[in-house]
Amino acid sequence: MLDRERRLPVNQDLQFMSLAVEQARIGAREGGLPIGAALVCDGTVLGVGRNRLVQQSSVIRHAETDCLENAGPQPPDVYARCTLYTTMSPCQMCAGAVLLHQVPRVVIGENRSWQSSEEHLRAHGVDVVVLDLEECVDMMNELLARHPELWSWG
Amino acid sequence: MLDRERRLPVNQDLQFMSLAVEQARIGAREGGLPIGAALVCDGTVLGVGRNRLVQQSSVIRHAETDCLENAGPQPPDVYARCTLYTTMSPCQMCAGAVLLHQVPRVVIGENRSWQSSEEHLRAHGVDVVVLDLEECVDMMNELLARHPELWSWG
Repeated sequence: MLDRERRLPVNQDLQFMSLAVEQARIGAREGGLPIGAALVCDGTVLGVGRNRLVQQSSVIRHAETDCLENAGPQPPDVYARCTLYTTMSPCQMCAGAVLLHQVPRVVIGENRSWQSSEEHLRAHGVDVVVLDLEECVDMMNELLARHPELWSWG
Repeated sequence: MLDRERRLPVNQDLQFMSLAVEQARIGAREGGLPIGAALVCDGTVLGVGRNRLVQQSSVIRHAETDCLENAGPQPPDVYARCTLYTTMSPCQMCAGAVLLHQVPRVVIGENRSWQSSEEHLRAHGVDVVVLDLEECVDMMNELLARHPELWSWG
């Protein structure tokens, strides 16, 4: 048990990523895409969000943008101390939102299902961390098995 | 008069840009940022939008994203025939939205006040046209003279 505990990367990033995973699971239960996000500043959660394509027919409320919107406008010095957690590698729009608001760090649950912006983020100086969590991969695999039309739509 | 008419680039792009300018002016009257957009497919306007930072405290509803959201989800073959008109050069988030939805053409009113994504768009194959309209420059100059805090916030 102790060995197992030592092997697990139980740290703050995993703790905050669990909030994003929770949002993704809520989204899945709503019939939506299982992608969630959380915005954290100095250990304080400013907002959480999830993809709303199905729920609100939204083409701009991805997990990350929904999360930023729910957190509301923040002063630049707050964004500058934030980490954005997202269960899946961000699309170009969400990566652009990170650059727009100058969030310096993005922690990604998995990038096996989708990856289009990590190089762009890193080229702009964003610290990009990929946790590669099976839990996040499994959520997307389940979606692709049950509702492939949602993914091609989203 | 005829000479003047011949010199003016009175074409379809200017016609649709006038819808974006109208949105920007509505935004200014609401006390918001004077930036507007219109999404057009095969000569049909699918939606218009404007920046909603002030009006809705929104950090994701820029003119372009508001416009895409108002147009609602479109099939890929519709986006593939669209032009997005915007009074000001898009930020990284809005450029990312263009790439996400694979809109192949962006027509920009002016890029003297702001420019951060045109190279990125062109690198991804987007046809970027800058009209450099004094009308659009004037709207931004007026904002910067009267409410510089809005621009630094936005």
